[in-house]
Amino acid sequence: MGADALKHAVVLLSGGLDSATVLAMARHEGYVCHALSVDYGQRHHAELDAAQRVAQRLGAARHRVINIDLTAFGGSALTDASIDVPQQPSEGIPVTYVPARNTIMLSLSLAWAEVLGARDIFIGVNAVDYSGYPDCRPEYIAAFEHMANLATKAAVEGSPLKLHTPLISLSKADIIRQGVQLGVDYGMTVSCYQADMQGRACGVCDSCRLRRAGFEAAGVADPTRYREN
Amino acid sequence: MGADALKHAVVLLSGGLDSATVLAMARHEGYVCHALSVDYGQRHHAELDAAQRVAQRLGAARHRVINIDLTAFGGSALTDASIDVPQQPSEGIPVTYVPARNTIMLSLSLAWAEVLGARDIFIGVNAVDYSGYPDCRPEYIAAFEHMANLATKAAVEGSPLKLHTPLISLSKADIIRQGVQLGVDYGMTVSCYQADMQGRACGVCDSCRLRRAGFEAAGVADPTRYREN
Repeated sequence: MGADALKHAVVLLSGGLDSATVLAMARHEGYVCHALSVDYGQRHHAELDAAQRVAQRLGAARHRVINIDLTAFGGSALTDASIDVPQQPSEGIPVTYVPARNTIMLSLSLAWAEVLGARDIFIGVNAVDYSGYPDCRPEYIAAFEHMANLATKAAVEGSPLKLHTPLISLSKADIIRQGVQLGVDYGMTVSCYQADMQGRACGVCDSCRLRRAGFEAAGVADPTRYREN
Repeated sequence: MGADALKHAVVLLSGGLDSATVLAMARHEGYVCHALSVDYGQRHHAELDAAQRVAQRLGAARHRVINIDLTAFGGSALTDASIDVPQQPSEGIPVTYVPARNTIMLSLSLAWAEVLGARDIFIGVNAVDYSGYPDCRPEYIAAFEHMANLATKAAVEGSPLKLHTPLISLSKADIIRQGVQLGVDYGMTVSCYQADMQGRACGVCDSCRLRRAGFEAAGVADPTRYREN
């Protein structure tokens, strides 16, 4: 098999549980993976340190971090220091929603994919546990893919782009089961919205609650490092 | 008329001829304009200085610059120092095309619009003079608008977003004629792909050629400051 037969993909990698699983899945499918993290000024910078470890351990060909300061816009508990991260479950679209976050991250993936000549992008969106986020739904993903195939030189020249969302209809427990089968060490990952400098989780935010419940439902020991509260 | 009746819009403003005209048009239609410039690591930084002057002179309510270093991806003469800006007309999609540029800039506009509660975005794309760019075509704009209306909290809650492209089918001469009628001083704007530190144009790149021809066709004296070549 020649070098031309290698399949290249851009994989969005936050450093959390979901995107680590996606990277393992993409590698398992034989893709050469170019991992992309976006630092949009989020509070939990420990996630980006985790992303670097995860990229290396799971065999990404390279890992790039793009800095983009969405704090200039405000409007989310994750980027606006004046909005508290909720400590209790909330209804509807949560305040931790970052405006247009997936659209921005997918746009950056699209740019890199075009430069690399990659026609596959992987993103760990999930419509089950995070149903409050509009940009995690299948109809949004389909619309982005359609737009992307009108946006770029390669697509215009007849090489369509495919958005892969392997987690979109999985429960957190199913994601964890599949990741464990693929050898993902979830102790490397950080999902907490307000992790400390060492990447230790708070245990009480929405993201921590979903993650902990996922390990319980999967019957897998939770390797998360929690700090004392 | 109460404050609630004010119409707010995000206007993408590069500092060039087209986007200055769009800002004047949006103001003329009565929008309170929030001007957004994106510094994607382009060579012609003088354009951003021009954007600041244009925003002020044409009455934008505010002007923000978002920095995002697309040079990390390379692949365009505008962001990759190893690719020369062509000095002669070229066929097909030009090398000055920045991968996914409009998609990234519109995504950022979408984020800011959502935070501001604005439901209108203006962008100065043009399908006539720049027909080589896939992300300047009407079908691309329609697809982005459709995606945006699935992506955001406000859209999900029933307040659709509108992308305005008032230049999309105008010739450069028509753009200039309309801008002059609205009082735009094009001497403030910089369109050149390789302007110098003082914003003086090269006169030979694709952008300079289109601009100069536009002034000639419009019968308007060209106020562009050219440097000695």
